[in-house]
Amino acid sequence: MKPKSPSESSIITYQLAMPAYSNPSWRDNSLDIGAINGGAILNLVDNVAGWVALRHCRTRAVTASIDKMDFLNPVHVGELIRLKASVNYTGRTSLEVGVSIEVENVYTGTITKTGKAYLTMVAVDDDNKPIPVPPLKLTNKIEERRYNDAEKRRQKRLLNKS
Amino acid sequence: MKPKSPSESSIITYQLAMPAYSNPSWRDNSLDIGAINGGAILNLVDNVAGWVALRHCRTRAVTASIDKMDFLNPVHVGELIRLKASVNYTGRTSLEVGVSIEVENVYTGTITKTGKAYLTMVAVDDDNKPIPVPPLKLTNKIEERRYNDAEKRRQKRLLNKS
Amino acid sequence: MKPKSPSESSIITYQLAMPAYSNPSWRDNSLDIGAINGGAILNLVDNVAGWVALRHCRTRAVTASIDKMDFLNPVHVGELIRLKASVNYTGRTSLEVGVSIEVENVYTGTITKTGKAYLTMVAVDDDNKPIPVPPLKLTNKIEERRYNDAEKRRQKRLLNKS
Amino acid sequence: MKPKSPSESSIITYQLAMPAYSNPSWRDNSLDIGAINGGAILNLVDNVAGWVALRHCRTRAVTASIDKMDFLNPVHVGELIRLKASVNYTGRTSLEVGVSIEVENVYTGTITKTGKAYLTMVAVDDDNKPIPVPPLKLTNKIEERRYNDAEKRRQKRLLNKS
Amino acid sequence: MKPKSPSESSIITYQLAMPAYSNPSWRDNSLDIGAINGGAILNLVDNVAGWVALRHCRTRAVTASIDKMDFLNPVHVGELIRLKASVNYTGRTSLEVGVSIEVENVYTGTITKTGKAYLTMVAVDDDNKPIPVPPLKLTNKIEERRYNDAEKRRQKRLLNKS
Amino acid sequence: MKPKSPSESSIITYQLAMPAYSNPSWRDNSLDIGAINGGAILNLVDNVAGWVALRHCRTRAVTASIDKMDFLNPVHVGELIRLKASVNYTGRTSLEVGVSIEVENVYTGTITKTGKAYLTMVAVDDDNKPIPVPPLKLTNKIEERRYNDAEKRRQKRLLNKS
Repeated sequence: MKPKSPSESSIITYQLAMPAYSNPSWRDNSLDIGAINGGAILNLVDNVAGWVALRHCRTRAVTASIDKMDFLNPVHVGELIRLKASVNYTGRTSLEVGVSIEVENVYTGTITKTGKAYLTMVAVDDDNKPIPVPPLKLTNKIEERRYNDAEKRRQKRLLNKS
Repeated sequence: MKPKSPSESSIITYQLAMPAYSNPSWRDNSLDIGAINGGAILNLVDNVAGWVALRHCRTRAVTASIDKMDFLNPVHVGELIRLKASVNYTGRTSLEVGVSIEVENVYTGTITKTGKAYLTMVAVDDDNKPIPVPPLKLTNKIEERRYNDAEKRRQKRLLNKS
Repeated sequence: MKPKSPSESSIITYQLAMPAYSNPSWRDNSLDIGAINGGAILNLVDNVAGWVALRHCRTRAVTASIDKMDFLNPVHVGELIRLKASVNYTGRTSLEVGVSIEVENVYTGTITKTGKAYLTMVAVDDDNKPIPVPPLKLTNKIEERRYNDAEKRRQKRLLNKS
Repeated sequence: MKPKSPSESSIITYQLAMPAYSNPSWRDNSLDIGAINGGAILNLVDNVAGWVALRHCRTRAVTASIDKMDFLNPVHVGELIRLKASVNYTGRTSLEVGVSIEVENVYTGTITKTGKAYLTMVAVDDDNKPIPVPPLKLTNKIEERRYNDAEKRRQKRLLNKS
Repeated sequence: MKPKSPSESSIITYQLAMPAYSNPSWRDNSLDIGAINGGAILNLVDNVAGWVALRHCRTRAVTASIDKMDFLNPVHVGELIRLKASVNYTGRTSLEVGVSIEVENVYTGTITKTGKAYLTMVAVDDDNKPIPVPPLKLTNKIEERRYNDAEKRRQKRLLNKS
Repeated sequence: MKPKSPSESSIITYQLAMPAYSNPSWRDNSLDIGAINGGAILNLVDNVAGWVALRHCRTRAVTASIDKMDFLNPVHVGELIRLKASVNYTGRTSLEVGVSIEVENVYTGTITKTGKAYLTMVAVDDDNKPIPVPPLKLTNKIEERRYNDAEKRRQKRLLNKS
């Protein structure tokens, strides 16, 4: 299989934080909205990681695991979420996608970091059997660093399993 | 604050896996549905963890982090997802909720394990400032083991941060 | 067909009342949210009854009728809805599922009764033709009372039709 | 309050039956869609009844009860649902809305009757307290018959409660 | 093919403007809802035009173009949107559907004009190839005027393309 | 007000075409999915145009009009939609946002042009009154050409109105 660089599948995408992403409640006769649910963020993150994996593999891909993720700051309804996702590492049938999440307050332009997620995706055929993924072609220092960091995370994952 | 046992807030709940939880595509002139997205599962998991935290704290609570989670088996459209969630551990302003996920094939009754998630939730006031949570009252061996395991995960989280 | 007890298919499940379940309006420059729609409750009720019927029959099942239902108390956005559903009665190709609905105010823990619904579900094959359902095995007094009550409701339904 | 005729608030409206209204499942490697859920139909019915009540009362209105409803025929994804709703009867603070449901196969034009629903709606103020509704002005034989039938249903409802 | 009059496929339908149709934001600690998005209105307009085209052609139909549309007045959450749609003109494989949009304030009954849209729909077979549509049978002056206006718009569209 | 260049607010964003964006139907016992609705595309287009306007103005903005738009090619479920949007022109209280839409077949990588939309957005205060927008700072030939084209479209719009 022909190697592909991260930039051939990487994505930067936006989504406005919608009320449906929160658990609003009606308290003291007024609407209590608070912050967007962490799970809604994770859902967006997994979607975008899936798109990147699809673009790298050009086959179906499923999420095998998501690494620990911290929510550094709350996301509010109406903030513009920006997700940057790219392939960090490829194994034989799996790949790691890194997703960084930040939000922009649309009225002030202030940007806040929400967090970073690392997902392991597995390329699968129509019977959900793992199939080989195109190897990653590293083209610069940043991609090399990301690859090495991903490899360390992978070692750690394998260790934790055994 | 009066201590509360895990059973006072624990939840077992169900959700049918809907097509909207997957990324279907139209390929070779037929609908390719495949498995439910990992992100959709995480969204359900976070929702249920939030309900449990709300019931334990009786205040708002936000997700501070989610531990690494493996998806052991694919979830298909139309399978009945069962989520069991309970408080494993309480700190001063945070608590750990454990969620186990399994799915039932509604036509055969076969139950498959999907995975286990550990979420750290923080109780917050209306200005999103952390506030104390009721301490956990352990009432049996299982709850004690879960508490100890959660404490170890917490130590690990604190170590990884520093 | 092997008889099955109600407990083999019964479900207790939760759902947070979401804003999408209401008909909010913008009045006097502020959001008027009011109560969750009765129809949204009925939708949840029918979903859960369907899951129970699927689990009892292990075949497709469709809703043939829903009995009169009173909404005893309004349900507000952010309240936690609890639905308890179980098979009360089985005929040859149909069964009655009873669903009780109550809501919990997540900030106070107060539980309010919303109502009770009785649905007649029919097991069907892939051409939507009725097929036999497993008979109900009654294992205690409560299940016997529910069976007898359901049988009376069934007689009444048949009478009203003729 | 000025009396209002049924035609001042009656509504005929359409909705295409969407896949999200069904409980599809993935069986034998293909998508099993079957019929639209009864609960989705009830949700539409309650929505439309609410719009009619809003138009008659020009105040908020909540669903107090729905009468027994039979689903005469299955509704399939992609069929065009037509709902006709009008006020049949008014009490002091409540009114009965009748909703008839039929579906049109968009490829053949064939129309199938799905059922008829009767909902009791109560006009409420901002504290959810019942408030008077405008009396109904009957303008023809059909409206008179509907009023009389509704009055009988009302007597029956009151009897069943006591 | 047998000619069909506009009234055989025309539709008047209603939809309550839902919060999900807007881009709410959380500003100065309160929910800023504002007006329904133009895009949500266009989505409803296209849906209804599609239903009308389906009913006229009794085959699949896709949107080929939408004419310039002005939004004359904002639509608010909770207002009742009324859409009137009918076939204005038929070509060999395409037809023009006109949709007028107005909203009713449900508390006052005041009706406001939102705008008018003209969509060109093309009848297609299962391979998305254009197929002939039934010719339009004009039965009164209004239909004749609409037909002539649509023909002028069509000429203009063809001119603008070349 | 300080002038801003188009690149300060422009957005490139992605969305997978979901089944909920189409009008699927159940025909000859199988699911007929066909193409994504034009209205769903317009909804995405308007959302993204709104985000760009928000970023340029840092105030609320509403859609005043959308120019005629042709759908050059059908969009299928599961294709990855890419929307590029930027400010082309600013008036005193309004601005034109141009949005180009193309889709990528995720299995082949083939990119297809769907169309181009021009939306006029108006900046508004909390009472929906128009307010001044920051003037546009043109920084290259492409932006100048877009500005001039937009100005011609604006003249045409004003002419058509009179």
